[in-house]
Amino acid sequence: MTSPVTYDEVVTAASRIAGVAVRTPLLRSDALDSVTGARVFLKPECLQRTGSFKFRGAYNRLSAIPAAERAGGVVAYSSGNHAQGVALAARLLGMPAAIIMPHDAPRLKVERTRADGAEVIFYDRLSESRETIGGALAAARGAVVVPPFDDRHVIAGQGTAGLEAVADLAALSLTADIALVCCGGGGLASGFAIGSGVPVVAVEPVNWDDVTRSRAGGAIVPVSDPQPTRCDALQTLRMADLTFATLRAHGAVGAAVTEAEVARAVAFAFREFKLVVEPGGAVALAAALAGKADIAGKTVLVVLSGGNVDAAVFAACLAEAG
Amino acid sequence: MTSPVTYDEVVTAASRIAGVAVRTPLLRSDALDSVTGARVFLKPECLQRTGSFKFRGAYNRLSAIPAAERAGGVVAYSSGNHAQGVALAARLLGMPAAIIMPHDAPRLKVERTRADGAEVIFYDRLSESRETIGGALAAARGAVVVPPFDDRHVIAGQGTAGLEAVADLAALSLTADIALVCCGGGGLASGFAIGSGVPVVAVEPVNWDDVTRSRAGGAIVPVSDPQPTRCDALQTLRMADLTFATLRAHGAVGAAVTEAEVARAVAFAFREFKLVVEPGGAVALAAALAGKADIAGKTVLVVLSGGNVDAAVFAACLAEAG
Repeated sequence: MTSPVTYDEVVTAASRIAGVAVRTPLLRSDALDSVTGARVFLKPECLQRTGSFKFRGAYNRLSAIPAAERAGGVVAYSSGNHAQGVALAARLLGMPAAIIMPHDAPRLKVERTRADGAEVIFYDRLSESRETIGGALAAARGAVVVPPFDDRHVIAGQGTAGLEAVADLAALSLTADIALVCCGGGGLASGFAIGSGVPVVAVEPVNWDDVTRSRAGGAIVPVSDPQPTRCDALQTLRMADLTFATLRAHGAVGAAVTEAEVARAVAFAFREFKLVVEPGGAVALAAALAGKADIAGKTVLVVLSGGNVDAAVFAACLAEAG
Repeated sequence: MTSPVTYDEVVTAASRIAGVAVRTPLLRSDALDSVTGARVFLKPECLQRTGSFKFRGAYNRLSAIPAAERAGGVVAYSSGNHAQGVALAARLLGMPAAIIMPHDAPRLKVERTRADGAEVIFYDRLSESRETIGGALAAARGAVVVPPFDDRHVIAGQGTAGLEAVADLAALSLTADIALVCCGGGGLASGFAIGSGVPVVAVEPVNWDDVTRSRAGGAIVPVSDPQPTRCDALQTLRMADLTFATLRAHGAVGAAVTEAEVARAVAFAFREFKLVVEPGGAVALAAALAGKADIAGKTVLVVLSGGNVDAAVFAACLAEAG
């Protein structure tokens, strides 16, 4: 059986990213507390370097590569946010990076990945295996593969967001009852559960709620009928043994939100928090606003996991939400 | 002659707003430093309560009203951000508030002002005097008038942003060479100059650059030919003796930016900082990006003064900037 990532691994990650990653604040608003009937604190990882939490895990993973093994660089597969995290971490650590991205990745994410000096290689999301392409490329180059979530260092790095959030609450003499976390493959949700020690609800788009159904069913259930979604960052077909084991060990459950609920959350963050949140980064807030988790009367952490969204998609969300 | 507001008045304001206003962070990005050739730190007052710096001055002003004089409430005139600042401060301090707003104020600003319990009274920006309307209303109600910038307490409150910014830089062992500050009537620019001790460039939209021309000419010059602008927050026809005296005492100069430069800055903040900045709140960043101030090689503070923008205007800025 796969051993869950530990708290000590998250603490080690925190020491590696200190002074490199942004220590994002907690934000709150009367309007959000009023709508939800809860005491809600947002962890805005859209303000993280590269615009998402992914930099935490990527930097932790890359900085754990021994100096003698860095010359071959890294290979990663990603819909975009992990790509940027790996690209920046590689640049900061002086390593070459090749990123395998789906051909329909948002333009902004492709541009920003290249802007950090990475080579971008496209694949077809539904007909090709990014793991196979990545493995072959890494073997040819002597590169280290950096998976987006199926990796202890990556999960531990994401967990630093949870460490920070509970420390900031403690400074206010508060403890969280529950945390709502955006979920694709479960790397952030797993890390957050470990780092925070708070019961986690892993929030996904409907049709892509494999983590929700896996946790409910007691075994990994892949996505069976993928539908188009604005939440490009969360289009993961199957979680990993490691994230499944970790989320099970911490008693995490799942919740699913609709595209309309996501648009409403993007618009809420725009209006009330002046934050740019991408659709996939807004699903946890969407769950809070739509009553998809039992949070009334509780102290709640909600992660906004990223803000890399093309202008047209963002404008469409605002227009749709009215 | 009008005596400039003092540093001690800003320090007093800081003690009044502590724990009530958000202590906004400083943010930076490699992309911004690369574009400007400077070391730039943004002070994102769009993350302040009510979505702009105005809450600082409003809360400082209202909390200075003796308890015995609070029953009559407050009257303010504002294009929207000061309105929200006064409305929230009044709610927090248990005072009624009436706000006189231009009939063309952004819908979002009107809604948010009402949401904090204030009464909104409309006037025509070009044909009516908001000062006259406000004075009559205050006399009838026994209320205290809270001007948007022509007030020592208001200016001192805005200055707390400058205090915080230089303290945060000092923690990084840095000092600022220059500060670019958004400017309507000059309240924030005056306060920031006092609180930070940093030479200030007060940035305005072209056609509304009365502070620029007043400082250049040595006496107050009103706006002579007001043109439509997206920067609704900065449509001030004439600065005050107090802000003029303060900016002169601190050697502040002015700069003006075009509507296109403002749109580019709004889009830059969206893309690189994941922040929602309203057009009037983006003029200082616009000046930095467009080379309207001599900042190359310098350590620079840039204030993003607000984020209360209607979705359609925001989307139009993003689309225009490409």
